[in-house]
Amino acid sequence: MRDKALASSRGWAIVESLTTEVGPRLAGTEADIRAVAWAQELLQSSNFDRVWTEPVSIPVWRRHHEQARVVSPYPQPLRITALGYSGSTDGEMTAEVIGFPSMKAFKQADADTVAGKIVFINRKMERHKQGAGYPPVSRMRYTVVPAAKEKGAKAALIRSVGTDSHRFPHTGASVRSDNPFPTAALSAPDADQLQRMLDRGVPVRLALDIRVSERAEGITHNVIAQLNGRENPEEIVLIGAHLDSWDLGTGALDDGAGVAITTAAAELISQLEQRPRRSIRLVLFGNEEQGLWGAKAYAKQHADELARHVIASESDFGAGLVWRFDSANPDLMSTAMTALAALNIEQGKKPSSGGPDIGPLQQQGVPVFRLQQDGSDYFDYHHTADDTLDKIDPEKLQQNIAAWSVVTWLAAELPSVKRTANE
Amino acid sequence: MRDKALASSRGWAIVESLTTEVGPRLAGTEADIRAVAWAQELLQSSNFDRVWTEPVSIPVWRRHHEQARVVSPYPQPLRITALGYSGSTDGEMTAEVIGFPSMKAFKQADADTVAGKIVFINRKMERHKQGAGYPPVSRMRYTVVPAAKEKGAKAALIRSVGTDSHRFPHTGASVRSDNPFPTAALSAPDADQLQRMLDRGVPVRLALDIRVSERAEGITHNVIAQLNGRENPEEIVLIGAHLDSWDLGTGALDDGAGVAITTAAAELISQLEQRPRRSIRLVLFGNEEQGLWGAKAYAKQHADELARHVIASESDFGAGLVWRFDSANPDLMSTAMTALAALNIEQGKKPSSGGPDIGPLQQQGVPVFRLQQDGSDYFDYHHTADDTLDKIDPEKLQQNIAAWSVVTWLAAELPSVKRTANE
Ligand SMILES: [Zn+2]
Ligand SMILES: [Zn+2]
Repeated sequence: MRDKALASSRGWAIVESLTTEVGPRLAGTEADIRAVAWAQELLQSSNFDRVWTEPVSIPVWRRHHEQARVVSPYPQPLRITALGYSGSTDGEMTAEVIGFPSMKAFKQADADTVAGKIVFINRKMERHKQGAGYPPVSRMRYTVVPAAKEKGAKAALIRSVGTDSHRFPHTGASVRSDNPFPTAALSAPDADQLQRMLDRGVPVRLALDIRVSERAEGITHNVIAQLNGRENPEEIVLIGAHLDSWDLGTGALDDGAGVAITTAAAELISQLEQRPRRSIRLVLFGNEEQGLWGAKAYAKQHADELARHVIASESDFGAGLVWRFDSANPDLMSTAMTALAALNIEQGKKPSSGGPDIGPLQQQGVPVFRLQQDGSDYFDYHHTADDTLDKIDPEKLQQNIAAWSVVTWLAAELPSVKRTANE
Repeated sequence: MRDKALASSRGWAIVESLTTEVGPRLAGTEADIRAVAWAQELLQSSNFDRVWTEPVSIPVWRRHHEQARVVSPYPQPLRITALGYSGSTDGEMTAEVIGFPSMKAFKQADADTVAGKIVFINRKMERHKQGAGYPPVSRMRYTVVPAAKEKGAKAALIRSVGTDSHRFPHTGASVRSDNPFPTAALSAPDADQLQRMLDRGVPVRLALDIRVSERAEGITHNVIAQLNGRENPEEIVLIGAHLDSWDLGTGALDDGAGVAITTAAAELISQLEQRPRRSIRLVLFGNEEQGLWGAKAYAKQHADELARHVIASESDFGAGLVWRFDSANPDLMSTAMTALAALNIEQGKKPSSGGPDIGPLQQQGVPVFRLQQDGSDYFDYHHTADDTLDKIDPEKLQQNIAAWSVVTWLAAELPSVKRTANE
């Protein structure tokens, strides 16, 4: 199965189809409806025992227009993108900018110096194989809003949460509120440019024009497919990815790759002579990007069977090579490693997370595993217009599928993989 | 002087100032007026003997709005940029796309199959140290228009002339005419995306919305500074760069770097105890990008002294390391090489060109030299929004300035550098 995965172009065909035929698929939009239909058709045409969808109620936030320019002293455009749940500016709004190197520095600032201004937080994200630079900086997308409101700012700008130096601003969810606040990210070169202007010590005035909309009553779907277990069909090994994407790119790395990896892995298992002992459930989650809406809905809708979810994991970190397998189950670990070592995957440890959409399950006690990918360049593209198919290496995708098919099959087959207190 | 150049941050300060305080500076616009004022102030504050401007009459083409989207069968936006002198679409215009791998294939197509459609030429540019991949592909920007008009197409799209795979469309001049035609470039990932759709064999409909304007009677300026020669002030060594840039980026590599390199080199020479034998004239050309308007005006306005231009060269190929010195003058070559070898610059040959703005002078018999740069990644950024200051390596800039100061000084000092028939 591992070698079949390494020779198959199936994963590539899946992500090529999703990113080309659907493209960007912001949750709750018309494109998202097409994505759900695409996923249903894909899974129904494969060898699954059951394919179904489950509704997820969501707010539908949309981006309509976003523009920024320096009014004075050095008139020129700046490249921004509104963060998810940002408010609008009601036409072009002009104000002076006040810059801070970090949230900490901003929080210490006198409200007097901030009131009526556009706040700009210019904190850089560090590059790291496992994305360790992301959490401390991405947090800003949320924390900047209440602080900016409290000090009477007119809008908030952050340096993009990303590791590239291209003029792609990185979007991402911010704070949802009844009183939405204009919040946007500058691309790294634009953040540098604005900083150079501020460093000259003269007042810098920006004009922002952000138009977005939000509708409370939206809907998307989790798309689910199952291979029924041969002996213990009630026991579930859950693997998945998220189907939705931000609107700027075509959602290739985030998370078309995960959809392709987990779907192709499940398909390989479906083609074996017999079903594994337990059921394998493939979940393509709706609206991960704006707050794990699909994952939370799944955990709620399946509350009564979570105790029978023996293990779960999501592929949602791009298409880089898997380099480590993390599991708290010693039998699964040792058995899997006999096949994974040839894929240059090293033995890991107890995983801290099984992926964003697995969080709500993990909180309810579902054990998780992790196939750690090299995400060194993931945040070069993450949540930008540049997250497109050409950023995926087909061979690396195949290595991922090989690893996922091995681990998923073992998790569904090994007698030792069952819910125990120590996991 | 060479070592002083390698230790100085002057070149960086110049390009930092130009790209930050002026930013994008499309010829004939308000930003261009600020660029000319910036250049005058820069040169007047240095040790030149004379600083002046010369008017250049130009048409002023401007970009106002550009948007493309797939209407069917896979609705999604595509990233485009209008080419210089493109026409407008008069609101959103929808038509089917017909694709061709090359201009040759397009030219052979029946007009019947093209009429009423949007033509798409998807030819890739090859990466090359000296940019050899550029001319055969950039030519398309011009040749596609008459061919598309002749066959009754509604608009022309080309794959960007560039070597990157990021979602930055590359602009560049197209054909100017009384009957402008909507002409735009897709970024490489968008060209790939559109090609994948066409390859599915179903009709692909695009909506284009391009709004541009052109005003015939515009003006820009060549900004000129001179160090008067000690013995033969009437003999001129001309070095320069172009001051204008496209509107998408901040014109850092193209051609803020050249402005910094040649200005800093001339400044170093101006700080020597005595002026060299001949005059050194630094010319910052206006509107190179839309058709060498400044260079043509200079050649015309200085027709009577071109015979006294002993040698000329322009820096307009980014900020990569100089790796070869090209000159037809054996004395200049051998003398310069004693200083250039330590900069890892190898001895070259007779140059075919001294840079785009030197073309009109070369046609009038002015000899040229060339400090060949490594342009391997120049066309990753060329004419895109991503041509920003962060793409310049300060140390490489210093090496350029060191090389230019050495060669320029020698050209102005060596008795053997004079107009001879064999150059
Ligand atoms: Zn994701
Ligand atoms: Zn140029």
